[in-house]
Amino acid sequence: MDFTTKLNQRITRIERALDELVPVYGGAETGPARIHEAMRYSLQAGGKRLRPVLVLSAAELFSGPAVDPALPAAVAIECVHTYSLIHDDLPCMDNDDLRRGRPTAHRQFDEATALLAGDALLTHAFLLLTRYAADPRLTTALVRELADAAGSARLIGGQMQDLLAEKKTDATAAELDFIHLNKTAAMIEASLVFGGLIGGAGESDLGLLRTAGRHLGLAFQIIDDVLDATADSTTLGKTAGKDAQAGKTTYVKLHGIENARRMAQEQTDRALQALRSLPGDTAFLTELTQTMTARVK
Amino acid sequence: MDFTTKLNQRITRIERALDELVPVYGGAETGPARIHEAMRYSLQAGGKRLRPVLVLSAAELFSGPAVDPALPAAVAIECVHTYSLIHDDLPCMDNDDLRRGRPTAHRQFDEATALLAGDALLTHAFLLLTRYAADPRLTTALVRELADAAGSARLIGGQMQDLLAEKKTDATAAELDFIHLNKTAAMIEASLVFGGLIGGAGESDLGLLRTAGRHLGLAFQIIDDVLDATADSTTLGKTAGKDAQAGKTTYVKLHGIENARRMAQEQTDRALQALRSLPGDTAFLTELTQTMTARVK
Repeated sequence: MDFTTKLNQRITRIERALDELVPVYGGAETGPARIHEAMRYSLQAGGKRLRPVLVLSAAELFSGPAVDPALPAAVAIECVHTYSLIHDDLPCMDNDDLRRGRPTAHRQFDEATALLAGDALLTHAFLLLTRYAADPRLTTALVRELADAAGSARLIGGQMQDLLAEKKTDATAAELDFIHLNKTAAMIEASLVFGGLIGGAGESDLGLLRTAGRHLGLAFQIIDDVLDATADSTTLGKTAGKDAQAGKTTYVKLHGIENARRMAQEQTDRALQALRSLPGDTAFLTELTQTMTARVK
Repeated sequence: MDFTTKLNQRITRIERALDELVPVYGGAETGPARIHEAMRYSLQAGGKRLRPVLVLSAAELFSGPAVDPALPAAVAIECVHTYSLIHDDLPCMDNDDLRRGRPTAHRQFDEATALLAGDALLTHAFLLLTRYAADPRLTTALVRELADAAGSARLIGGQMQDLLAEKKTDATAAELDFIHLNKTAAMIEASLVFGGLIGGAGESDLGLLRTAGRHLGLAFQIIDDVLDATADSTTLGKTAGKDAQAGKTTYVKLHGIENARRMAQEQTDRALQALRSLPGDTAFLTELTQTMTARVK
């Protein structure tokens, strides 16, 4: 099966699981329909489903191509990613009206509903991890990984630092690295580690997955900075040049376009190197990494 | 040891644990100081610490008076309670400037920081539950209980329904029951069940703890409605008469003062009855319930 067919099959399976594993309004016992509509509205807004695909693909390295066991964890990761986008779009944060061409949650519903839908998706992610309760050690490891990756020192710390950096035009390279390592790379790392944990990977392979995720996340973010500075809005699917206009510190601003491109390539190479040391058939993850990072070549 | 001494000792131990078990800014590796300052600002705003006291007191019924094992779970519950208050106070929700006489988180910091501090406290609660990782079955049970109680069908569903009810003046008795059962009682139930799980209670005792928590939570909320309608602002420590002024549906509005008082007493009696069926020395929990619900007699 070629890469694209396999990718599309996984995405289809993930879309179905997102529908099956996230609660719908079930009458008076489950509270108002509106909260569940808002959770589903944002979850079903599409997107590349990169993080859940990483969960399934990393699990496959250790336990073969059956994706079902990894689906609740993959959906949990997408719930956390979606919650972070909903809260990020709120007026007090980035104040975005559109995401992927549709009204953001607070524009479609209202601010309070969007706030609560984000809260509910974050909470639901942890509930989904108890689907692994038959293996309580695994559940505990997944909860720790997710709570760490999404916590105040990582995902949320990265968002906080990003907000602080927007208010000044002289963020340092170290501050920028912290933002990308945590706002972007933390959840990509957690996705690969989730797959490894579910597949039963040992400590050293979990370390390689973490390394691959960190470099892939950094590559991804540097590429976003390069694209914002070089692509037009049509290619990008969102407003180009926003960073420069906002005076925001980016890899391009700090290091120049050519250096930023080189740094993205370096991070990609390091991710690929970590993948090569893993057992199993890493062809799919390798091609996924190359596809994701090919956008600036 | 009398009730008040015991209560104060527990509160002191909880305050210390809140300080020890919630992260502080630790330099560049842990992200900006601001997010951790905001988490701690709201956590340390005081309050009765009712929910963590319930965790410790329920654990004691089964495992004796050593409170240390129950502290991480007690702090986790308080983190979730505090997150729900921070988000509830935001301009898009209740838009409150003061809580317990101090500026609310978004007034002290800003809206974005308050939003993220709430998110971080919710996430940190789940991380704290992995402190029980040596007993992964217990960890899994705690995660499921918390994610259920705080999720879209309970705490968050109750808040959503509360917002919807504020917009109309004809909420039904069933809608009002749903709000109180979930917005208030869910986390009180979870507190008692947490204690039971940590103490090693069996299924039938966990059921009694859940029943006691549900009735205590309902009594507590009905009493709040009665006090809002009858007490003056000084006694109350917050603006009295807010509900009637907002045209909000309350137990008092739906059933009248005298019936509301009687219903609070009924709920209290049911909570006490469930407590009496539990093993161990329930004197402290009984007195706590009586103290908490004595405010309208």
